Amino acid sequence: MRDAFHEELAAITDSLAEMTNLVASAMARATTALLDADLQLAESVITADETVDLLYHEIEERTFDLMVRQQPVAGDLRLVVTSLRMVSDLERMGDLALHVANVARRRYPASAVPPVLRATMLEMGQVAQRIVAKAGSVIASRDVNTAVQLERDDDVMDALHRQLFTALLDEHWAYGIEAAIDITLCGRYYERYADHAVSVAHRVIYLVTGEMPNVPAAPSSNSV
Amino acid sequence: MRDAFHEELAAITDSLAEMTNLVASAMARATTALLDADLQLAESVITADETVDLLYHEIEERTFDLMVRQQPVAGDLRLVVTSLRMVSDLERMGDLALHVANVARRRYPASAVPPVLRATMLEMGQVAQRIVAKAGSVIASRDVNTAVQLERDDDVMDALHRQLFTALLDEHWAYGIEAAIDITLCGRYYERYADHAVSVAHRVIYLVTGEMPNVPAAPSSNSV
Repeated sequence: MRDAFHEELAAITDSLAEMTNLVASAMARATTALLDADLQLAESVITADETVDLLYHEIEERTFDLMVRQQPVAGDLRLVVTSLRMVSDLERMGDLALHVANVARRRYPASAVPPVLRATMLEMGQVAQRIVAKAGSVIASRDVNTAVQLERDDDVMDALHRQLFTALLDEHWAYGIEAAIDITLCGRYYERYADHAVSVAHRVIYLVTGEMPNVPAAPSSNSV
Repeated sequence: MRDAFHEELAAITDSLAEMTNLVASAMARATTALLDADLQLAESVITADETVDLLYHEIEERTFDLMVRQQPVAGDLRLVVTSLRMVSDLERMGDLALHVANVARRRYPASAVPPVLRATMLEMGQVAQRIVAKAGSVIASRDVNTAVQLERDDDVMDALHRQLFTALLDEHWAYGIEAAIDITLCGRYYERYADHAVSVAHRVIYLVTGEMPNVPAAPSSNSV
């Protein structure tokens, strides 16, 4: 039977999983809004980010409160501190989905994505969905193997990100500067979204093994 | 006289101030490398980021160790948790300086900044220096007034960021797509660097007043 501390921590973990679902849904809808120039959908993502931010502050408050009341010792303390970090990563992921939705809204009624890059952006959206789903599953299961799989998805994301730049720098790029700016920014948002999901998984590995994978806490590639 | 806990926490605060100096120097050198196409300087920033990352892990380890050994209660616990967050912000600021240096290196021997944007980018670098210097001073002094000033600097940064896009979208933009991509990315790096510095200051306000300013932990504007 679990004690009060572990009951409360399990409830916080449930909330982290709920927040993961919210930021997954936000990025899925932002991707559709971007590709289909769907203003209403873009605005729904922008509005929904307030819910993510509220949940963020609530989880943070509950976690801090748990630390103060229960004074957890070493291993348990590590669990709690890790929760605080995961919730920051998730909050940023919500912001990045919001940024994608903002690009969709700004370019409405046009789509920000030229036909030549639709397939690549769609795939970036799909990889983002795979990664965030796995991050959610890692939070719930603490399965180190799934956490390792995320890194492969992240490699795919980086490769797609490079494809964007290849298209932008092709001498036949015919969509002008504004589209190039939007694609550059969106590429960066998807890539960072994936990085934060990997960071969530790394924190779980750290909890389970006591060792952080050999990367900074919020890894960031810079692939141009 | 301070007890062991507060002595150790003061030493951690000194290390945070040291880290602030490192990421300030990194962005100053990255800006010069970018404007002057100085390859050697760019590479020195890239190499020096390892020192920032080492310091990050060391501060994190010491902070965690302090929590485990001293079991701080409410107010002190908040201090320690806040240190953990500030060190994450500072680590990201180091990464962002590294990204700017990477752009400088990639475009060498050319400069990534067309003449028409030199003054704006130089000013973004200067505002970054002002903001990070104030963040360092807020860490050391816990002066809420300086923390509020940072927000004004951040507004200046956002205005400069918008200037970049105005120039990029001008019909007379004559520097092509590659320069537009580099400027878009660098603009984003400076803007995020400033955001993280503001976030550091907000955390100090939170420590002093118990109230977080009305923004998410790592504020991010998205000004295109």
